[in-house]
Amino acid sequence: MAKSLPVSPLAPAAFPDLPVIDGVTFAATEAGVRYAGRKDVMLALLAPGTSVAGVFTRSSTRSAPVLDCQAKLGGAGAEGAAILVNAGNSNAFTGRHGVASVEAITAAVARAAGLPQARVFTSSTGVIGEPLPHERIIAVLDRLVAAQDATGIAAAARAIMTTDTYPKGAGRTIEIGGKPVRIAGIAKGSGMIAPDMATMLVYIFTDARIAQPEMQVLLSEITELTFNCITVDSDTSTSDTLLLAATGASGVDVAGQAAFREALFEVMMDLAHQVVRDGEGATKFVEIDVTGAASDAEAHTHAMAIANSPLVKTAIAGEDPNWGRVVMAIGKSGAQADRDLITIRFGDTLVAEKGWVHPDYKEADAAAHMKGAHIRIAVDLGIGQGARRVWTCDLTHGYIDINADYRS
Amino acid sequence: MAKSLPVSPLAPAAFPDLPVIDGVTFAATEAGVRYAGRKDVMLALLAPGTSVAGVFTRSSTRSAPVLDCQAKLGGAGAEGAAILVNAGNSNAFTGRHGVASVEAITAAVARAAGLPQARVFTSSTGVIGEPLPHERIIAVLDRLVAAQDATGIAAAARAIMTTDTYPKGAGRTIEIGGKPVRIAGIAKGSGMIAPDMATMLVYIFTDARIAQPEMQVLLSEITELTFNCITVDSDTSTSDTLLLAATGASGVDVAGQAAFREALFEVMMDLAHQVVRDGEGATKFVEIDVTGAASDAEAHTHAMAIANSPLVKTAIAGEDPNWGRVVMAIGKSGAQADRDLITIRFGDTLVAEKGWVHPDYKEADAAAHMKGAHIRIAVDLGIGQGARRVWTCDLTHGYIDINADYRS
Repeated sequence: MAKSLPVSPLAPAAFPDLPVIDGVTFAATEAGVRYAGRKDVMLALLAPGTSVAGVFTRSSTRSAPVLDCQAKLGGAGAEGAAILVNAGNSNAFTGRHGVASVEAITAAVARAAGLPQARVFTSSTGVIGEPLPHERIIAVLDRLVAAQDATGIAAAARAIMTTDTYPKGAGRTIEIGGKPVRIAGIAKGSGMIAPDMATMLVYIFTDARIAQPEMQVLLSEITELTFNCITVDSDTSTSDTLLLAATGASGVDVAGQAAFREALFEVMMDLAHQVVRDGEGATKFVEIDVTGAASDAEAHTHAMAIANSPLVKTAIAGEDPNWGRVVMAIGKSGAQADRDLITIRFGDTLVAEKGWVHPDYKEADAAAHMKGAHIRIAVDLGIGQGARRVWTCDLTHGYIDINADYRS
Repeated sequence: MAKSLPVSPLAPAAFPDLPVIDGVTFAATEAGVRYAGRKDVMLALLAPGTSVAGVFTRSSTRSAPVLDCQAKLGGAGAEGAAILVNAGNSNAFTGRHGVASVEAITAAVARAAGLPQARVFTSSTGVIGEPLPHERIIAVLDRLVAAQDATGIAAAARAIMTTDTYPKGAGRTIEIGGKPVRIAGIAKGSGMIAPDMATMLVYIFTDARIAQPEMQVLLSEITELTFNCITVDSDTSTSDTLLLAATGASGVDVAGQAAFREALFEVMMDLAHQVVRDGEGATKFVEIDVTGAASDAEAHTHAMAIANSPLVKTAIAGEDPNWGRVVMAIGKSGAQADRDLITIRFGDTLVAEKGWVHPDYKEADAAAHMKGAHIRIAVDLGIGQGARRVWTCDLTHGYIDINADYRS
């Protein structure tokens, strides 16, 4: 990206003040992987005892770093660990060269940080199919290790951005048994967002104590209702990675603790929403609520068909309460629907009931809702108890601008 | 549509000179369903002995006219038949009112033309969810019957347009056993095009003699490789209808005749390509060829994932040979792929082989191909013998312009 994009109108006012996680330090620097004049590599070091769980893209063309991370998950956390991320080049579809780059980087990080190579996780994000100049990253590793700082998470969030227009962070501090437990996470992503496991790159840190297998189950369950419920453009990245690291430094065992689950859910939902709010060209944040489906999975299929329909998304961009296009999207989704049982609301306005426009419907009411920046579309299928809520953004000229010359 | 759209840069030079089909007459007129100052209803009358076959959208929210047509197919062709089509209102998601409109129109056509109501087929295309003012159509039926003309097919093609920027027609005349057999067809469609059976509206006429059940099988087989292989925007209409009427007037029995099958295939492919060339905002006609897949169905899934990817389509609009996005689309398609066996060509340029960029690849070569109006992307998966070719267009600012205020 030569040019710099204007900040999304849906961006939060500022990067949040995140809790410091005992056992985690950060540093970010300029390696010049692709971009000039900005930090493009971040290294997080995790104290001995840290468990790492992860979810990844299910793409069949997933990148070498994703495959490497997947292979390394699941080990116990007796040793420390590291997460290294670069922006500008995704090291995807780079064949044996890509595998060699991951091997070279993880070996170098292990050396520089004094860790086993099996505990070094890497991610790469940016252009697909170009060789990663990994020597530029290896050249700055000593500097990254020396600069480690427990308060460096905001700089790390900035270093992993590509077409993002703002850095994304979220945190929570809760009390369990009178002791504080902290969670802090960062994410990047704004295009090629229809996560099939996790959004492009997300890193969440906590000082909770939790066994890795249990943490993995918790992470996968929550991903299903957060990152797997957002879409910007229906395109699924080859690099989607979400890593959750628990240092245990709080001394609080969170196994089975509803408060921890809730706090982690909130952090993940917050980050997922921030990704949608930075959707390429987005001017509207759109919530789609499907109820009354045959199952939750069928509700998800319908909701995603609506959220990914270019005709629905352009209508929202045009502030047009074009509910006929919502009906179209339900019809094509492949999930069960009965045209004459469908009820649709735009905001609080009942638009259609049992298959036809409601007699009291005034288009001006729905049109007023469409002027806002937070659009709510609710569909009840009238068939069963299945429900799912998903989030997306509108499709605007900005998306075309950004993507018709991303590489130029 | 208040404003009039500029004609697609991919439009053919002129509407073709179609053969006259013995046993079919046409008329078109202004009924004022929605648009002012243009013909918006067409009526075709089919002589006694005409067989009618059809394929329709598989949308679960399909329109009342589609359901009515489906119920009427399959009868023998001993009596005449009629096809009435209006533009401006799709009579979709209109509940019992929609069914009543179809009943009223088909009864009135039957009366005006002296036909059984069971042989009157109707289609409606345009806005979804608004009541069809069917009395305006009924009011012009006597005029339509009186004005029937064997050479009126071009006016009929114009009368069924909505966001189309040009009328679409295709024809062939072949000889079987020394006797001529003629085929003439018309189509409309430019947005909400990802047919799941047929494109929005297509009507094909022939003087061939063929039994209805055999014609239906032939039509379904060819649809699978023509209209079901095109996409403009991944959105599937609630009204997709393709009717094929054979009057038998040529006296030539075409059962099992390869020449007829080939000619019908050519007419359907030609019409399908014309729909893509009128894709909303299109500036490039894109052919995507997938080979080496595990099966033809898997090749279709991959090809459609590429053809529907907004990132691939915006890259094409930007004349960027961004093959990384092709890899991404293959990866997300859900069909089988092995990253390290994939080969990709843009035009005649070998871009990537066995999972990585080819050492001789020069981006300038692929970039030169992208400047043209006919883009060819070929992917070989290196797995099996499955193959499929599909067609789409690019995604441009024009698509956003048209769809952010279609209803306004």
